Amino acid sequence: MIDAIGERARAAARRLALTTTESKNAALFAMAARLEEAADAVLEANGDDVTRAEQEGISNSLLDRLRLDGSRLEGMAAGLRSVAALPDPVGEVTAGWRLANGLDIARIRVPLGVVAVIYEARPNVTVDAAGLCLKSGNAALLRGSSTALRSNMAIGSALRAGLADADIPEDAVQVLEDTSREGARELLRAKRWVDLLVPRGGPGLLAQIEAEATVPVVVDGAGNCHVYVDAAADLDQAVSIVVNAKTHRPGVCNAAEKLLVHQSVAPEFLPRVAKELSDAGVELRGDPAAMEIIAEMAPASDEDWDTEYLDLVMAVRVVPDLGTAVEHVLAHGTGHTEAIVTQDISAADAFVDGTDSAVVMVNASTRFTDGEQFGFGGEIGISTQKLHTRGPMGLSALTSERYVVRGDGQVRR
Amino acid sequence: MIDAIGERARAAARRLALTTTESKNAALFAMAARLEEAADAVLEANGDDVTRAEQEGISNSLLDRLRLDGSRLEGMAAGLRSVAALPDPVGEVTAGWRLANGLDIARIRVPLGVVAVIYEARPNVTVDAAGLCLKSGNAALLRGSSTALRSNMAIGSALRAGLADADIPEDAVQVLEDTSREGARELLRAKRWVDLLVPRGGPGLLAQIEAEATVPVVVDGAGNCHVYVDAAADLDQAVSIVVNAKTHRPGVCNAAEKLLVHQSVAPEFLPRVAKELSDAGVELRGDPAAMEIIAEMAPASDEDWDTEYLDLVMAVRVVPDLGTAVEHVLAHGTGHTEAIVTQDISAADAFVDGTDSAVVMVNASTRFTDGEQFGFGGEIGISTQKLHTRGPMGLSALTSERYVVRGDGQVRR
Repeated sequence: MIDAIGERARAAARRLALTTTESKNAALFAMAARLEEAADAVLEANGDDVTRAEQEGISNSLLDRLRLDGSRLEGMAAGLRSVAALPDPVGEVTAGWRLANGLDIARIRVPLGVVAVIYEARPNVTVDAAGLCLKSGNAALLRGSSTALRSNMAIGSALRAGLADADIPEDAVQVLEDTSREGARELLRAKRWVDLLVPRGGPGLLAQIEAEATVPVVVDGAGNCHVYVDAAADLDQAVSIVVNAKTHRPGVCNAAEKLLVHQSVAPEFLPRVAKELSDAGVELRGDPAAMEIIAEMAPASDEDWDTEYLDLVMAVRVVPDLGTAVEHVLAHGTGHTEAIVTQDISAADAFVDGTDSAVVMVNASTRFTDGEQFGFGGEIGISTQKLHTRGPMGLSALTSERYVVRGDGQVRR
Repeated sequence: MIDAIGERARAAARRLALTTTESKNAALFAMAARLEEAADAVLEANGDDVTRAEQEGISNSLLDRLRLDGSRLEGMAAGLRSVAALPDPVGEVTAGWRLANGLDIARIRVPLGVVAVIYEARPNVTVDAAGLCLKSGNAALLRGSSTALRSNMAIGSALRAGLADADIPEDAVQVLEDTSREGARELLRAKRWVDLLVPRGGPGLLAQIEAEATVPVVVDGAGNCHVYVDAAADLDQAVSIVVNAKTHRPGVCNAAEKLLVHQSVAPEFLPRVAKELSDAGVELRGDPAAMEIIAEMAPASDEDWDTEYLDLVMAVRVVPDLGTAVEHVLAHGTGHTEAIVTQDISAADAFVDGTDSAVVMVNASTRFTDGEQFGFGGEIGISTQKLHTRGPMGLSALTSERYVVRGDGQVRR
């Protein structure tokens, strides 16, 4: 099964690699138009998915991600058009030089080939991923969850109609119908066909990937993000950054989960931030030193420090110095995003250099770790691994660089 | 066992990441000096290794790689000094921009952390890898083969003495004493400690890695390299490129293994190149069309097209057009290096764009795919995978890029 799908994807990828930017952009516009035309069919299919999901009793936050309406569909179509407006990464010469023997070396950005995405019940990912893969010249294998299957199939057929309109092989986008665990396993081991797999899901999916995947993977990983409020922090800034990082959208990976506070400012800072967080409905859990300052805090367990709550919960630790904060982040962080609030240059540098996360913020909210915010025009995920790409993954994360060497008969002596 | 080693490597890596270029260069010079001082001990240990290897009856080419002498040792020390002369990749700002909200984003090159190398009986790799890892701020775990263990341990203790001289943790370079297959397995699964594994070895090692590795790997892969001689080739160039690519050093991965010749030039070209190749001792194996031109060629089997000979053997196919040559490369190549010889711009472009190997040469020998030749000042391997890095791997392949975002209190709205 995966071989037939993979072979079609590979053939489409070969064509796509040679397709001009103009044609790819035309296809993105056609996909957007077809998606709008298919609005009724997509919303009907989505209605079915939502009804079944409700019967199965899935959580409200998952239902909210699953549910589409006219305006969300418009947003998805607009997303495709905005991807068309982005510069094409393919063909970019990222370096070039001439050797002493006259050889000209160019390092050139090329598509990866076939990109697979495994994701949960968010039909918008189908559109976003298809658009980013197409623009970067990659064939997409999109494997959403069974909960969103009807929505995804309806979206997929609209997108494929758009590709056909623009004379690009429909198999440049394939929505996989098989959403079984066995089907996922096949995909994870389809080394011959899959050049990159981006898993977007919870710990269960990531564990399966670690155990079974033989295809190259970039992990869109967990975000146990920290904000460290330094002795030299501007406390007004610190309050607003912590509150924003925790409460602006608590269910996403770049939300702050932990607050580390230098002991010299904790007595003044903690009561202020605790009040605002409590007003916003955040439950605080503290270490003993924090609880001495805010008596009504629950105690944080050992497990708390390693937990990504994705909820209105935050654990608070009072630290004796910046070094302890850095050690804490290295011991408990997930390599996603950390922030320091300080007016002290040396403290900022020490925190930046001492931590080892994909993104480190100085006096800014962790919520800015995002492809759109970074100006990438979209993202296929946020990488928490060190190889290939790290942090928000825009179009260039879906490419590889190869070398073209031009000579006039040079041989090695 | 691996945990104790890994923990020491991690601690050293943390220190190294904060070490100045000046200190790292001082260490490289001290390592070179200590290696020269230890020449007698290293050569004695190497003599033991060679004696045992001879008793075990290993091949002459392996013996040649294993054997050290005063001049090779000098070369290794000189290599360390030349790494000191290379620019430090760490701290390079590879991109930077300001967002509309005033946030300044910088993408900064940082060490990976701990780099492990698994390699065969070539003691020079111990020195090369240690030097490149140190310069790029990574702690090195070096696991050579049992055949070279005594040599590697002697070299390792000289290198570590040099590190100590320069006040850098000795554990920045660890030569692993355990060369068992079980030891390799531990290393392959030491996800907590190993940020990058570079395997340099044959198909057996690569198969073990595919089956067992959970650490991030960049594969230094096989080179079934092709030279395609186009209808519009300068045939003098073509002869010298093919002969150089095949015979300059037949046992290495960038040697050409296959010759594809356009049918319109085959009758003139094949006899010329066949004579020169035969004179150099190359055995030719042909497809039926090639055998019609050179009767004394042996027939190439199906297996031949997928074989990396690493020897004075070359298979020859006559193709009806460039498209067939490209298809042949896509079907049988290993993604390492391909070359086209042509004076026709459109043909060159079609070959470059149609193939998908790490390096494609236009009118130059495949032998130029090499970190030294590319001007990287050394290489830790040649990547045939698409993610992270592709082609010759210099210092920057041993780094990662992370983002530092500086603001003055920005929160997300």
